[in-house]
Amino acid sequence: MKEWDSRQKARADRIQAGSRFADGKVVAPANLTALLEAVIRSKDRVCLEGDNQKQADLLAEGLAAVDPSIVHDLHIVQSGIVLPEHLDLFEKGIAKRLDFSYSGPQSARVASLLFGGKIELGAVHTYLELFARYFIDLTPNVALIAAVSADRDGNLYTGPNTEDTPTVVEATSYGNGLVIAQVGEIVDKLPRVDIPGDLVHFVVDAGRHFYVEPLFTRDPGAITEAQILTAMIAIKGLYAPYGVRRLNHGIGFNTAAIELLLPTFGEKLGLRGKICTHFALNPHPTMIPAIEAGWVEQIHSFGSEVGMEDYIRARSDIFFTGPDGSLRSHRAFCQTAGLYACDMFIGSTLQIDLNGHSSTVTESRVAGFGGAPNMGSDPRGRRHPSPPWLKAGAEADPDGPAPLRRGRKLVVQIGETFGEANAPLFVEKLSALELAEKLKLPLAPVMVYADDTTHIVTGEGIANLLLCRTADEREQAIRGVAGFTDIGRGRNHKMVEALRARKVIQRPEDLGIDPLDADRSLLAARSIKDLMLASGGLYAPPSKFRNW
Amino acid sequence: MKEWDSRQKARADRIQAGSRFADGKVVAPANLTALLEAVIRSKDRVCLEGDNQKQADLLAEGLAAVDPSIVHDLHIVQSGIVLPEHLDLFEKGIAKRLDFSYSGPQSARVASLLFGGKIELGAVHTYLELFARYFIDLTPNVALIAAVSADRDGNLYTGPNTEDTPTVVEATSYGNGLVIAQVGEIVDKLPRVDIPGDLVHFVVDAGRHFYVEPLFTRDPGAITEAQILTAMIAIKGLYAPYGVRRLNHGIGFNTAAIELLLPTFGEKLGLRGKICTHFALNPHPTMIPAIEAGWVEQIHSFGSEVGMEDYIRARSDIFFTGPDGSLRSHRAFCQTAGLYACDMFIGSTLQIDLNGHSSTVTESRVAGFGGAPNMGSDPRGRRHPSPPWLKAGAEADPDGPAPLRRGRKLVVQIGETFGEANAPLFVEKLSALELAEKLKLPLAPVMVYADDTTHIVTGEGIANLLLCRTADEREQAIRGVAGFTDIGRGRNHKMVEALRARKVIQRPEDLGIDPLDADRSLLAARSIKDLMLASGGLYAPPSKFRNW
Repeated sequence: MKEWDSRQKARADRIQAGSRFADGKVVAPANLTALLEAVIRSKDRVCLEGDNQKQADLLAEGLAAVDPSIVHDLHIVQSGIVLPEHLDLFEKGIAKRLDFSYSGPQSARVASLLFGGKIELGAVHTYLELFARYFIDLTPNVALIAAVSADRDGNLYTGPNTEDTPTVVEATSYGNGLVIAQVGEIVDKLPRVDIPGDLVHFVVDAGRHFYVEPLFTRDPGAITEAQILTAMIAIKGLYAPYGVRRLNHGIGFNTAAIELLLPTFGEKLGLRGKICTHFALNPHPTMIPAIEAGWVEQIHSFGSEVGMEDYIRARSDIFFTGPDGSLRSHRAFCQTAGLYACDMFIGSTLQIDLNGHSSTVTESRVAGFGGAPNMGSDPRGRRHPSPPWLKAGAEADPDGPAPLRRGRKLVVQIGETFGEANAPLFVEKLSALELAEKLKLPLAPVMVYADDTTHIVTGEGIANLLLCRTADEREQAIRGVAGFTDIGRGRNHKMVEALRARKVIQRPEDLGIDPLDADRSLLAARSIKDLMLASGGLYAPPSKFRNW
Repeated sequence: MKEWDSRQKARADRIQAGSRFADGKVVAPANLTALLEAVIRSKDRVCLEGDNQKQADLLAEGLAAVDPSIVHDLHIVQSGIVLPEHLDLFEKGIAKRLDFSYSGPQSARVASLLFGGKIELGAVHTYLELFARYFIDLTPNVALIAAVSADRDGNLYTGPNTEDTPTVVEATSYGNGLVIAQVGEIVDKLPRVDIPGDLVHFVVDAGRHFYVEPLFTRDPGAITEAQILTAMIAIKGLYAPYGVRRLNHGIGFNTAAIELLLPTFGEKLGLRGKICTHFALNPHPTMIPAIEAGWVEQIHSFGSEVGMEDYIRARSDIFFTGPDGSLRSHRAFCQTAGLYACDMFIGSTLQIDLNGHSSTVTESRVAGFGGAPNMGSDPRGRRHPSPPWLKAGAEADPDGPAPLRRGRKLVVQIGETFGEANAPLFVEKLSALELAEKLKLPLAPVMVYADDTTHIVTGEGIANLLLCRTADEREQAIRGVAGFTDIGRGRNHKMVEALRARKVIQRPEDLGIDPLDADRSLLAARSIKDLMLASGGLYAPPSKFRNW
């Protein structure tokens, strides 16, 4: 007779095995590794909460310390591979297979472990895509998560960095898996309940806050005049004519420059209230001047940002906040919002090829995708119209019958023609392709595909790929904004001028922008200290960004 | 000086205004309309929870009874327009503007109110798309939701029909809006906490269960031999060669037939374990025989289904269940899973045009989209490979370089060439287009667009649109499976035979299927009673489906 509740029984067994190391649900850190050896089974699918920002660091240390003869061949399914311990698991044989989304600081080591055969790669996902698989074929058996505090019933308070936690717990706990949380403290009454205690089986009192990295703090002092120029071009040549009100910004300096030009350059153009009113965005400190100047109606966030806590609390009309007044972030919903409710995604990239494929991969790193490919793709299941979306759709297909023509999401790649260390932005062959060949990946890790990309912005101007009618035009439109790179110098001048006449290419002068005006004085804040001052002292920059 | 916490203050004012009608958070039904008049402001954005299945029916009655001179011009933002009261709001002037997703039983009345100018239409969305906008530009000021029970702190138990509730509450409550829940009873201890009480401001003790409709129960007795034939063709000609393991089924009889053929026809083909192992799916009763025969590993559900409660509880290895043992559904996550983690969407449709656009709209009804366009679209932000996805991608673009070639989602439209009342499935012009012209909609309500559709299945065979290289080939491939409809009779016989030689069209005989074998004896259950018996008596069909 087939058993139909084997997962429930397995969880009950795990809870029982772990209970000897716990007082109720509460586990002392000294018992952590013993607990994990008791409740985790070899070959389990494990999510060791590594989000974009928040890390279950104590649980990572605990898991890396288990005896590989007891626990081995785990299948790790988590969005971020961020801490060294995440990879120690593979070196020690505790883990074997990996499905993930993002590996920022560990990207070189991921590549080398892949090469060395220490990691058996499932796939590299976007965040939302990995979350989706949690409910279909990658449901975790065990989730090791992080929260700020818990009560003795296991109710959890995640604080502003809620991030992935509700999604991970939903899939694991309702999928009859086991949930273990590390918390900074056990309290009698939580500021708010982010995760009901029903769903949490053990709580480890770490006695310290989980690790979190300020990932979205861009020092205005490091913004170059070249970046200011591309920002001016983007605002006047894209945001204004399309009337983009709902959007997502990448995390690079180019978009930080746009944020800091809104209250100056944007204000002069009379664009307040007409663009940039609603965002799917982390709480970027460089948004402070635009928020203070009344540009922004609402921001929903994937995660939080270190130092922005008090500012967010004091600006609850703008940010989603809980009954305790602190930020409520939610990566899955914010990614969904970025996909379906935004009309533009704009981000920096490292390489663009002649088709328009772009990638941030270098040959020796497997950095993963994060959220960009999700938000930087045309959501073909979208059905609600908006002016920017309809205008982009009409540009792409001017002859189709309007009621049968969908709109298009604006997907913009922005950068300087020569980036850091003078590396050209435009290349014949993406490093992503070289990497795929080297590692024998079935797919090159392309960040944004050519067929989703609508515009490329550099200091030389805007290439509007929606208006290109042939592969040739597309190539020349790209060459036409590629500056003095080899790609740019290989342009067909006559064709490029013809494209410019058709406004497929728009130069700064075509937009009435004088490159000499691209001056740092245009930035609404020129330093981290300016951001702090603009916030009325509410923004408390992390010490590594303070020099006063 | 700008106020930055006006929303928080407005909520506090609303709570204070409502508190005179409440005992703590608890409101007696007799006070409901007075409460709503006290806490809702004219022009508010209101989500009156109308899900696909679950309805906040008492709150709908209460809202429809408010005095339109006090509360008027509301903007209704909710997925389902299902109850008559949902539209009474517009007739009475209590509401004015509407953004929604689905209007099944009210679709004719929606159309007539649109015509009469009583409804100002925002847009018709898919579920996930409307949820996305809840976090960007359609955040509700007030949510009126439904749950099974509450405790006195406002913690809620939704039971198996969790559906939209967590998403609606997340956006409303963290967006500083007000949440009012109707519940069947107030208890001391909930079976599980689906919504933390922090997020819920008033609870109305309805004294009865909320309204819920059995939407996904298909009587096997009503499945025709024509539907059995298309199901056989789909299984042998699509599921088997692509090896589709992760998928979503529509709710029509065609896919119900597929579900009931798995343990018979599918078993004979040796496909158990090779196809249909993981689903994003409501708990369809017609899945019972396949589940019992060991075909299915896991199902994640948008909502629940009336009568399936005990069966689900006893099959917790298959379904996501809570600590109380009952189903946990979650529409937003399940739609995300259907979008990004499934390799196939297959559904019935009413009309297909010569491009391959399809629609379920008739000229006098605005039925909305529900979830189909989301799941029936190619998710271009997807980055993880799978065999069916890569195979479909290679068919669409055989000459592109493999590492730069994405896969394709299989999006299949299935139906008989003549449907109900002998209406042809294939048409020159979609009724959706006529409707758009009549109502001056910017977009025709197309359910699945031609460029997302990969296959069309009828009793005449399969048209594989991935293999078509020109618009002409595409048209003839569609005509080639359109049977004796006008469209089918207009085929170019020579070209259709050429397409068949290239396997763009596959006939039943090409697949080794004899149409005479399409017999009802192939169905693993031939009646609702058979389904109940197959479940070991655990499935308790609603009385309207019982005839024994």
